[in-house]
Amino acid sequence: MAKNWMMDHDAQALRVKADDLSRFVVDALTSIGMSKEDAETTAGVLVTTDTWGVSSHGVKSLRGYVRRLRGGGLHVQGKPRVVAEGPAWAQVDGDNSIGMVTSVFAMRQAMAKARAGGIGLATVRESCHFGAAGYYPSLAAGEGFIALAMANDIPSVSAPGARGALTGSNPFAYAVPTGGDPIMLDMASSTVAGGKVMAAHFHNKQIPLDWIKDKAGNPSSDPAAFFAGGSLQPMGGHKGYGIALLIEMLAGCLSGAGLTWQIKGWIDSDPTLATGHGAAFVAIDVSKIMPLADFKSRVDHVVKGIHDSPKAPGSQQIFVPGEIEAGKRKVALVEGIVLPPEVVAPLSGLADDLGIDLLAKLPHQVVAG
Amino acid sequence: MAKNWMMDHDAQALRVKADDLSRFVVDALTSIGMSKEDAETTAGVLVTTDTWGVSSHGVKSLRGYVRRLRGGGLHVQGKPRVVAEGPAWAQVDGDNSIGMVTSVFAMRQAMAKARAGGIGLATVRESCHFGAAGYYPSLAAGEGFIALAMANDIPSVSAPGARGALTGSNPFAYAVPTGGDPIMLDMASSTVAGGKVMAAHFHNKQIPLDWIKDKAGNPSSDPAAFFAGGSLQPMGGHKGYGIALLIEMLAGCLSGAGLTWQIKGWIDSDPTLATGHGAAFVAIDVSKIMPLADFKSRVDHVVKGIHDSPKAPGSQQIFVPGEIEAGKRKVALVEGIVLPPEVVAPLSGLADDLGIDLLAKLPHQVVAG
Repeated sequence: MAKNWMMDHDAQALRVKADDLSRFVVDALTSIGMSKEDAETTAGVLVTTDTWGVSSHGVKSLRGYVRRLRGGGLHVQGKPRVVAEGPAWAQVDGDNSIGMVTSVFAMRQAMAKARAGGIGLATVRESCHFGAAGYYPSLAAGEGFIALAMANDIPSVSAPGARGALTGSNPFAYAVPTGGDPIMLDMASSTVAGGKVMAAHFHNKQIPLDWIKDKAGNPSSDPAAFFAGGSLQPMGGHKGYGIALLIEMLAGCLSGAGLTWQIKGWIDSDPTLATGHGAAFVAIDVSKIMPLADFKSRVDHVVKGIHDSPKAPGSQQIFVPGEIEAGKRKVALVEGIVLPPEVVAPLSGLADDLGIDLLAKLPHQVVAG
Repeated sequence: MAKNWMMDHDAQALRVKADDLSRFVVDALTSIGMSKEDAETTAGVLVTTDTWGVSSHGVKSLRGYVRRLRGGGLHVQGKPRVVAEGPAWAQVDGDNSIGMVTSVFAMRQAMAKARAGGIGLATVRESCHFGAAGYYPSLAAGEGFIALAMANDIPSVSAPGARGALTGSNPFAYAVPTGGDPIMLDMASSTVAGGKVMAAHFHNKQIPLDWIKDKAGNPSSDPAAFFAGGSLQPMGGHKGYGIALLIEMLAGCLSGAGLTWQIKGWIDSDPTLATGHGAAFVAIDVSKIMPLADFKSRVDHVVKGIHDSPKAPGSQQIFVPGEIEAGKRKVALVEGIVLPPEVVAPLSGLADDLGIDLLAKLPHQVVAG
């Protein structure tokens, strides 16, 4: 079964309060020398992601980040900085800080440029895995910006005509202010993320033929073929491939970051080394272009049209992107976040790595399995 | 059979020189009062598209544009203008000029802003169908810019949970400078364009279940269901829907253009009325951020990696986006453009509309069917 080293502990599901989980993340990161401010920024990204129900990209990853912070490939006291800039753009060197700190810094650079010029671009090099791409534009949308985030990664996704992987699963996210919660989309450029293939493998299920190729380059319905040298397929064939390539151009070529196979996997590669990930952030300050209230009212007109449209058979509701995540967050902030076993396992391992008693340090209820 | 009024003439395939086809387009447009400059701009967009082999979006559409120019819904002497601007953005009112003239104007506004600030945004209202989205970023990439183009349209595409159409097929295109031809992707946010469904219908073929929904909102493999009140499906389900919605936000909400159902179909609606289409263009002046030669060399590294990658069974070559179109253009500029019958039919109809003898005015060879 395809498991990485982060999953070497057994665990059961826990229900925890968001504030308690944030405190645990901050304690873990400050215990290895990170500033309280940077630790809180990181906790904000990771715990918000868990409140959205996106447990694949939240605190689950913390053990991997800490391994590299302790190994030296990430700098626990790194300071992202602008190394070149112009009226509407900035190039950020992340100094191999944890990806969340660099990415919040860069998103805010793009927002500052947009406040001056209407639109702003920040490219990023010397970064690492940045978690859920959607966090950064959501942050900006909360302050009245339309915003985009994207990042490159080591190749795992194929393309039409190719036998194996050519591009990363290169995430793309955007958010837009509305009268209510922002519209927010966060997507990989593959048909599905590797985690979905792993789940099908675990449950011995066949998968659709457009999810993966086997190592010979043939589409396969057997999830095991992915872990035996296969690759993911791009969403919509040439379309997802083309979007992944645009992201490589902006987050990689224009940023000065690593390109495709120059990037190292953030989980399994030598933790004494930097991974070379790049990213790019774009912000548009709506209020510079039209009154923000007018813009929101136009967006709300589109959203209402969608909500009021006839439903497909069996459908009760048509969601706009991000609406499901916003709903889950509201529940999680009241009832607590349910961390599934595959999230608790690496947290438990992390606690062991750091000599902490996880269950003593993180107030929780055990959720019956 | 699903045919629109533009297809009321019988025709056979013709081979024509690009220059002769351009001259025909310019003559047709100047004969109804358009300036030579605007007619040449329009011919540049349409004939370039035909040299790429994208015959669905080239001179085939000219009859539809001329009908609206004569009807008054498009202004034959319209003058696109900047109605609001800031350091890195411009809002363009197209004055209901033909979409190609407005879009080239707006792309150049975005480029001018990018020359000053590094990145530039131009939004567009009072436009119409703009042809192949890829033309505009390709123009910019030829001058050293990374560029994007997008437009909204009357809804024809469904979404997860919806019975019918919610968004337009909202095209998105980008281009990036390389050491050779630009990388260029031009895509609809639906799984396939309506034209592909029409072709399957014509040939009595079943289609994959992710192409369309029938009028009850169920996925259908019968192309006839599309023309009986059905809708297209978004590429990759919620991903294509989310991308279409981002385009609506930028090209519609932020531009001041029509939104979703406020837009009129450009082929069949009353030609005395404006259609209300919007668009958005983004340009990044690479040379402001890093030396253009360094950027191109980084892009060429990625492209070479792709070209040199192992091929899938049965594949001889892995193309980067736009490479097939650039290859077809080189052949077309030497050997001529082959206009298939479904392009010659509306050109023949247009010639009748204007009292021109098409075959006398357009030097050609008949291509055996």
